Amino acid sequence: MSTQFAPETADGWAVLHQFFHVDWQVLYAMPRKEKNDLVETFTSYLAEYARPASGGQSAAFHILGHKGQLMLLHFRPTFKDCAQTELELSTLGLAKYLKLADSYVSVVELGMYHTTKKVIEALEEKGVKPYSEEWTQEYQEKLAPHKENLKDRCFTEIPEAKYYCFYPMDKKRGEQNNWYAEPIDKRAVYMMEHGMTGRRFAGKVKQIISGSIGFDDWEWGVDLFADNPLDIKRLIYEMRFDDATSLYGAFGKFYFGTALPYKELQNYFSGKIA
Amino acid sequence: MSTQFAPETADGWAVLHQFFHVDWQVLYAMPRKEKNDLVETFTSYLAEYARPASGGQSAAFHILGHKGQLMLLHFRPTFKDCAQTELELSTLGLAKYLKLADSYVSVVELGMYHTTKKVIEALEEKGVKPYSEEWTQEYQEKLAPHKENLKDRCFTEIPEAKYYCFYPMDKKRGEQNNWYAEPIDKRAVYMMEHGMTGRRFAGKVKQIISGSIGFDDWEWGVDLFADNPLDIKRLIYEMRFDDATSLYGAFGKFYFGTALPYKELQNYFSGKIA
Amino acid sequence: MSTQFAPETADGWAVLHQFFHVDWQVLYAMPRKEKNDLVETFTSYLAEYARPASGGQSAAFHILGHKGQLMLLHFRPTFKDCAQTELELSTLGLAKYLKLADSYVSVVELGMYHTTKKVIEALEEKGVKPYSEEWTQEYQEKLAPHKENLKDRCFTEIPEAKYYCFYPMDKKRGEQNNWYAEPIDKRAVYMMEHGMTGRRFAGKVKQIISGSIGFDDWEWGVDLFADNPLDIKRLIYEMRFDDATSLYGAFGKFYFGTALPYKELQNYFSGKIA
Amino acid sequence: MSTQFAPETADGWAVLHQFFHVDWQVLYAMPRKEKNDLVETFTSYLAEYARPASGGQSAAFHILGHKGQLMLLHFRPTFKDCAQTELELSTLGLAKYLKLADSYVSVVELGMYHTTKKVIEALEEKGVKPYSEEWTQEYQEKLAPHKENLKDRCFTEIPEAKYYCFYPMDKKRGEQNNWYAEPIDKRAVYMMEHGMTGRRFAGKVKQIISGSIGFDDWEWGVDLFADNPLDIKRLIYEMRFDDATSLYGAFGKFYFGTALPYKELQNYFSGKIA
Amino acid sequence: MSTQFAPETADGWAVLHQFFHVDWQVLYAMPRKEKNDLVETFTSYLAEYARPASGGQSAAFHILGHKGQLMLLHFRPTFKDCAQTELELSTLGLAKYLKLADSYVSVVELGMYHTTKKVIEALEEKGVKPYSEEWTQEYQEKLAPHKENLKDRCFTEIPEAKYYCFYPMDKKRGEQNNWYAEPIDKRAVYMMEHGMTGRRFAGKVKQIISGSIGFDDWEWGVDLFADNPLDIKRLIYEMRFDDATSLYGAFGKFYFGTALPYKELQNYFSGKIA
Repeated sequence: MSTQFAPETADGWAVLHQFFHVDWQVLYAMPRKEKNDLVETFTSYLAEYARPASGGQSAAFHILGHKGQLMLLHFRPTFKDCAQTELELSTLGLAKYLKLADSYVSVVELGMYHTTKKVIEALEEKGVKPYSEEWTQEYQEKLAPHKENLKDRCFTEIPEAKYYCFYPMDKKRGEQNNWYAEPIDKRAVYMMEHGMTGRRFAGKVKQIISGSIGFDDWEWGVDLFADNPLDIKRLIYEMRFDDATSLYGAFGKFYFGTALPYKELQNYFSGKIA
Repeated sequence: MSTQFAPETADGWAVLHQFFHVDWQVLYAMPRKEKNDLVETFTSYLAEYARPASGGQSAAFHILGHKGQLMLLHFRPTFKDCAQTELELSTLGLAKYLKLADSYVSVVELGMYHTTKKVIEALEEKGVKPYSEEWTQEYQEKLAPHKENLKDRCFTEIPEAKYYCFYPMDKKRGEQNNWYAEPIDKRAVYMMEHGMTGRRFAGKVKQIISGSIGFDDWEWGVDLFADNPLDIKRLIYEMRFDDATSLYGAFGKFYFGTALPYKELQNYFSGKIA
Repeated sequence: MSTQFAPETADGWAVLHQFFHVDWQVLYAMPRKEKNDLVETFTSYLAEYARPASGGQSAAFHILGHKGQLMLLHFRPTFKDCAQTELELSTLGLAKYLKLADSYVSVVELGMYHTTKKVIEALEEKGVKPYSEEWTQEYQEKLAPHKENLKDRCFTEIPEAKYYCFYPMDKKRGEQNNWYAEPIDKRAVYMMEHGMTGRRFAGKVKQIISGSIGFDDWEWGVDLFADNPLDIKRLIYEMRFDDATSLYGAFGKFYFGTALPYKELQNYFSGKIA
Repeated sequence: MSTQFAPETADGWAVLHQFFHVDWQVLYAMPRKEKNDLVETFTSYLAEYARPASGGQSAAFHILGHKGQLMLLHFRPTFKDCAQTELELSTLGLAKYLKLADSYVSVVELGMYHTTKKVIEALEEKGVKPYSEEWTQEYQEKLAPHKENLKDRCFTEIPEAKYYCFYPMDKKRGEQNNWYAEPIDKRAVYMMEHGMTGRRFAGKVKQIISGSIGFDDWEWGVDLFADNPLDIKRLIYEMRFDDATSLYGAFGKFYFGTALPYKELQNYFSGKIA
Repeated sequence: MSTQFAPETADGWAVLHQFFHVDWQVLYAMPRKEKNDLVETFTSYLAEYARPASGGQSAAFHILGHKGQLMLLHFRPTFKDCAQTELELSTLGLAKYLKLADSYVSVVELGMYHTTKKVIEALEEKGVKPYSEEWTQEYQEKLAPHKENLKDRCFTEIPEAKYYCFYPMDKKRGEQNNWYAEPIDKRAVYMMEHGMTGRRFAGKVKQIISGSIGFDDWEWGVDLFADNPLDIKRLIYEMRFDDATSLYGAFGKFYFGTALPYKELQNYFSGKIA
């Protein structure tokens, strides 16, 4: 039997993506004052989460096309906080004209492939039986400081940029190419190479990975932020040739659009993109 | 020809999962007294099933995202009882504002891989022809006391925990990796290893497996209960590397959310998570 | 080239499955007398088909979950009769509160693998060219009496039992496992073994197979009737290990529920399961 | 590199299939005179296309089940004519009660495998470079008279028969079985064998193939017409064992029903099948 | 490890496809003057983008069948401009009767396989380490003039033709046939051959490829324009036999229809195709 080791992860914000269809026609037909008040209340609610803070952060985006026009991205300390945000938003007057079309539930996650691999190899060399009490204790002790070091990146803020992209992904478990049947050292190399492709776009594309195993239908969610949309296209195109992707990557729907700063929401609901 | 043996199962509660979209806007717009009365009646109905009892048990959850916000989990002695609950719920006034978005029909099930394998091997050694009258009688006699021993676990109660996860699953019948073409002793080892991964999360994640072959679109349903959602993610992540999963597991949609104690339902329908 | 022989089939009733969503809330809100009258008319219509007769038979079931609550199963002499039933049902007052959610169109079918194989082998030994005039004539003459013998089973009645299961299925045409590329003698053995699994449940589960090639999206429909739902689960579970299924079976949605005798329909539409 | 030759095709009528859900309840509730007038106008419109003519032909069918009850099949000289028919139908009063559920866009097509293969082989023997000017000219000259001969069959009329079946199909491009990677002579043999299966049903089932590459989601549409529905089932079942299908065929949804002669449309919309 | 090089691309217009269901019945029932005014305003809005200009271009099409009747194709300098067009269209009175059914988001793209391959090979010969600072600088310097040369084709105008076809596509990452695991020189040959098939239709079919990696669910969108719809069918049919397609191509839905010049929009909304 050949069961493989999972990499340790460092986890941060509970994340909720909400994609809404907007009932433009009813909003445009509404008396201006009435609509402005609805948008004002909505904006005020979100404004509490405008700046990154211990209570989390929220940001708005316009998604192009038919899959849902308004997107809200919520970072919260816990999933209970996400649920509370969901309910509170649904009580606002504007919610009557926003129909939830899609969503994604995940946790900001940093994969610790390299460190996990080294700790596991060290334990193996010492001959400690995997998952024995001794193994588990030493494994956790050795990884704890590394996790601590990643805390800030796990509780990151939402990057500011003109364009935005979201997609969920899986690692394939195909009959030939099965990510979960590969040994951790091989996967660690794949991930390192994959990370190097990403680093070529440093300063151009900011990326937040969140884990969603057990939380949503795919294994990870990817959020990309860039001022130039061609950088997003190029990054994903180049990554598609990485072994980690060409052999093992599977993708869901892609959502793409523009940032919607809160101060632009009144304009947005009047038909003007910032 | 190489037809393989099915493991015996011990079966308990008939189970119905119901996922409802909530019409928040109409509920919030309703006179407070009217809404409270609707929720009160709904809560009273469910309260009869609050505590585990011979007539079964029901629990409520809030599911994050767009797939359905309110989930009810019903354990009942028979499927007729499940159907009766379905109909009774649909007569309640609140049902007008709950739209059934998804469901799952199954039976709490414990797979008896180890015991089945031993009984079958013993019969084989004695040279009894599989499925002959003698074989069937001895098979059932030997398994009966083991099934009896599992009765309590088959008629288990719904665990209390802050977070909740549900997903359905299949064992793959791929052209290379075909669970149902593997001999029972090999499958028994896979399942034992898989169970050992689960045991590493004892005390952190409680798990109820229910069988749905013939009852719903997937072969099994998995309900997980935990106070820390990261334990749910970690458990499923580690299990994904088990051979039983990496080679043979296939998954449906994942539903994730928070427990909704009945005493919190009034708050919930007023927009407050417990 | 390796084109294979299709087994002969004996065919009987034209079959229509109808799955309806029920608008419970409107029905419950309706004045009692009005609703009772609607249900009464509906019941009277179906009652004409309550008993098996030359004009066919119809039966009602409650399906658990969200896929459609009320199911009608119609056996008719011809598909035109099925169409007539469809239209007549849609004129009834109750139809306003029943929304067709799914359906299945098929013909009760008995696969004659063993007999076909023997006739084909006999013709081969005689050196008759397949599908030549001589071959076709002798093939039909030899199979005719066997088909005649199966007539009663093709025009069977709908079994009475407490629980009910329906699912459609295909035989796979995979790149490795391709049912339609296997020679008829090999398929005949698979089907015989598969039938033997079924026979182990004689008296517990009654089964009606209907063919739907050219009529609906899957190749066959399977209707199961049992007093104990665990027998349905066990039968399908054991069959999944048959080579006929483990290598070649593909399944659609599963519908499961309880029988709804006509005399119980008034209770049903008042929220009470028989 | 191994790029293969496409077979030449002879093309005829532009074809549009329209599948409509019928709002029976509103139609039945309507004053009789009003409904009859709506149906009368609808029938008159279609009646212009009742007989095969240079302007095309249209026919109506009742489809069994939930996928759409009324189907219209339009043959027209051009796709612009199809579009015009679409728009004109949507202006009719009855259209308010017909909801377009599905459609199929294609061109009556005869595959010229045998002739193409012979022309290509002749050009190869002469050593003419494929797709060179010389090659293209000779290829077209040699095929032109054959195409001309097929013209009548390309502008065929809609067969009259009691039962009707439609399904779309693809040729697979699998990793082992890839129709488009096979040389044209091999494909020509497959198609000839496939045609021979069809010929066994001459006089029983009439078949019209239409090509939809570039026009709709599948590569071909198949329309079958027969007085005995069991002939449709048997034809498709026997064809499924042809190598052309068992190895390379992929199918979409199947639509099956009964012919609806125009003179029966009033009866139909009153709930009576002809 | 065998990670491969992505080809460089030259990118132009931001592209938005919008597919709308038209509420014909309500439009036809509307007072003529009212409808004409709605269409007039809609036409005026689009007319600003009738001619190719630095601000972009828009064109209208009628799509056959049920997937959405009215299609708008927008070329804009930036995606922000696309978003602005989306919002502005939704404020128009006619938008009330147009329901967005599908969409596609992409960028006009020319793949530079041949040039990229040559630059990479030159750098390899010089022994420059891929993606090193030196490599990246030289790579970009050498490709820049070629990109500049392609600018006009990237900011092309929308071709005028009677018929129109759109479909999205992927390159497969199968377990045997994996486009993204093939070396760039092999892919360059495939693409050259594929281009040669296209060139056989020069003057008959005009084609615009747009890249959508990161922007929409497929990797590329293909727009075809032709006066003879059979040329569209034939082009795609012949291409299906190219190795680039037979081994590696995967396709989404196909949309097909007729051009709708702005001056014909009043006729169109009165039920007349130009």
